[in-house]
Amino acid sequence: MNDRFLRACRREPVDRTPVWFMRQAGRYMAEYRALRAKHSMLELCRTPELSLQVTMQPINRLPVDAAILFADILLPLEPMGAPFDFAAGEGPVIFEPVRSRAQIDALRECDPHEGLGYVLEAVRLIRRELDGKTPLIGFAGAPFTLASYLVEGGKSSHYVRTKKLMYGEPDAWNALMAKLSNVVAKYLVAQVEAGAQAVQLFDSWIGALSPTDYATYVQPHVARILREVETCGVPVIHFGTGTASLLELQRDAGGSVIGVDWRTPLDNAWDRLGPGVAVQGNMDPLLLFAPKDVLEAQVRRILGSVRGREGHIFNLGHGILPETPVENVQFVADLVHQVSERA
Amino acid sequence: MNDRFLRACRREPVDRTPVWFMRQAGRYMAEYRALRAKHSMLELCRTPELSLQVTMQPINRLPVDAAILFADILLPLEPMGAPFDFAAGEGPVIFEPVRSRAQIDALRECDPHEGLGYVLEAVRLIRRELDGKTPLIGFAGAPFTLASYLVEGGKSSHYVRTKKLMYGEPDAWNALMAKLSNVVAKYLVAQVEAGAQAVQLFDSWIGALSPTDYATYVQPHVARILREVETCGVPVIHFGTGTASLLELQRDAGGSVIGVDWRTPLDNAWDRLGPGVAVQGNMDPLLLFAPKDVLEAQVRRILGSVRGREGHIFNLGHGILPETPVENVQFVADLVHQVSERA
Repeated sequence: MNDRFLRACRREPVDRTPVWFMRQAGRYMAEYRALRAKHSMLELCRTPELSLQVTMQPINRLPVDAAILFADILLPLEPMGAPFDFAAGEGPVIFEPVRSRAQIDALRECDPHEGLGYVLEAVRLIRRELDGKTPLIGFAGAPFTLASYLVEGGKSSHYVRTKKLMYGEPDAWNALMAKLSNVVAKYLVAQVEAGAQAVQLFDSWIGALSPTDYATYVQPHVARILREVETCGVPVIHFGTGTASLLELQRDAGGSVIGVDWRTPLDNAWDRLGPGVAVQGNMDPLLLFAPKDVLEAQVRRILGSVRGREGHIFNLGHGILPETPVENVQFVADLVHQVSERA
Repeated sequence: MNDRFLRACRREPVDRTPVWFMRQAGRYMAEYRALRAKHSMLELCRTPELSLQVTMQPINRLPVDAAILFADILLPLEPMGAPFDFAAGEGPVIFEPVRSRAQIDALRECDPHEGLGYVLEAVRLIRRELDGKTPLIGFAGAPFTLASYLVEGGKSSHYVRTKKLMYGEPDAWNALMAKLSNVVAKYLVAQVEAGAQAVQLFDSWIGALSPTDYATYVQPHVARILREVETCGVPVIHFGTGTASLLELQRDAGGSVIGVDWRTPLDNAWDRLGPGVAVQGNMDPLLLFAPKDVLEAQVRRILGSVRGREGHIFNLGHGILPETPVENVQFVADLVHQVSERA
C-alpha cells in the first residue's frame, strides 16, 4: 500500500513528498467530459457507481498519492431541505435561498445514513476498488462556506446577505451554523466509518472574513466539528483560501493538516503554524497553464522552501480549473516525486 | 483648511483621525442615483461638471476629511485604444480584449493631457469648488489590475487569460505592463499638476498573486510608477485587497501610505510595514450593513488597535457597496472623529 500521504499527514518520514490535486477528477480530463456528456453533475454525485468511476479516473492515469471521493460540498443541503442544481456555466443555484429565521428553523438536521447514503455507498465502493493503491480522502464543506451558498443562493462576490445575517441576527446565524455543523460532523464521521482514511474540511470562502469576525462567528463552530471528527483517529485536513491572516485561528480550531493557498509562502505559513501540524499546498492552479520551465521552477521553489521538514503534502492552493492541460498535471506529479526523493 | 488627512499621510500629529471612504460618491447615495438616472457612468466620468457634482455629493453631506475625484480606473484604456463600457449590473466590458502581442504593440501610450483632458479639467474644477474645505485625492488603477480587465475583457474570477499571458509570454507581459505604467505615471503626475493634493494607486486585484509572482511580474512596474509620482511631493496611497502576504513587497515598491483591507489586522500590518509609512483602512465595507452596536464596536476596535501611532487614515478595506445605508456611513465618520479626538 502507498501510505506516503497518510504518513505525511502524521508528520512521519516519507520516501517522497506525497502529491494529490484538489479537483483531480474533473473537466480537465477527457474521460470526465465523456461521462458528463451523458450525465448531469448531480447524477454523477448521486450514483455510487458513477462517483466510483470518476474518482478512479485520475488514479488510473496520474501518479497521485491519494484518491478523493467525487462528490460536491453542497450535497448535504438537499436532505437538509434546501435543494439545488448546477446551472450550465453558472455554478450552483439554491432553489430557495435561506434568509429568514423561520427558514433556518425549518432546515432538517438530516442523518447522513439516510439523506446521503449514496455518498457512503460510493466511499465503500471506492475503497474496495482502490484496494490499497492509494488512501481515500472524504470531505465536506465547512459551515461558513455552506452558509454562504445557502444564504446567497449561489456563488457570491461580496457575501452581502451572508454577512448581513451574521452581523445583524447573531442568534439566527448561530442556529444556522450549529445545524450545518451538526450535519457536517455526522457526515464526516460517517464517511470515515464507510472507509475514508482521511477527511478534508473545505472552508473555501473563509478568506472573506477578518480574523476578528472569523474568531467570533465561525471558529467555535468549526472547532466543534473538528473535535468530533478527530475522535475517529484519521487525519483531518483543514482547508481554506485567502487565509493568510487566519492560519493560526484555523489551526486552533483543529485539523492535523492545514491547507494553505498560494497567497501565503508555505515556509512562512508553517513557521507560524508551528511543528504540531502538517501542511498541504500551495501552488497557484493557474501555474498549470504555464510553460514547463516556469512550472518546474515553481514546483522546485515550493519543495525547496520546506525541505527537511516532515509533513508536507504537495497540492495546489485551490482546485484544478477546467481548461488545464492534463500533461501539466502529470508533469507536476512526476516532478514532485522526483525532486523530493530522499537519499 | 481641514488638513487632517494630509497631516496623517505625513505621519504628523492630528486633532482627530481623518476619515474618508473608498467609493464615497456612489449608488448608495440618493443624490448619485438621481444623476445616474439621467446620465451613463461614462457620461458622468467624461463631463467635468458632472464629475465635480458627484465628487461633491459626499462632501456636502458627510464629515469626511478628503474628497476623491469621481472617475473610473479604466478611463485610460479608451485613449490607449481599448474602448469599453459598463454593462448594466455586469461591470465593465472591454470591447476587444487585448490578448496578443500584436494587440499589445498596438496600444497607444496616450498623453493624459489629450486623451484624459476631461479628468484633469474635473480636478481643476473640484479643487476650486472645494476651496480648502478638504484636500482632493486623485487616483489611477495599477498596471496588474488594469491588465486584468484588458486581457480578460472584464471582471474575472481566476484571471486565467491574464496569468497565462504573464507566465507564458513574459516579454509581451512586460511590454503591456510597461505601456500601462507609462500612461499611469504620466496620468497621476498630470492629476497632481492639475491640483490633486494626494493620489491613490488602486491595485485592487493584486491579491490574486503569490508573493513570488508579485515580485517577479508586477513589483518592478509599480515601483517605477511610484518613483515617478513621488517626485511630485504629494502623498501617495498604495492600495490593494487580499494583500496580507504582499504588504512588505508593496511598501518596497513605494507609497507613503499603504492601504490595508480587513483581512489583515491593522496593527499587525503596521508592525510589519514599519514606522516609515502611514496606513489607511481597514473596516470590512459589509459592516456598514450591521446594526449600530456591532458597527461601533468594530470602529472602536480598529481605532484602538493603532492608538498612539501617528499616520492612520480611517477608511474601509474596499469600496462602499450600492445598497449601503447612508446613515451608517455618517455614523462611522462621526464616530471616528469622536473616538479619536486627542485630549
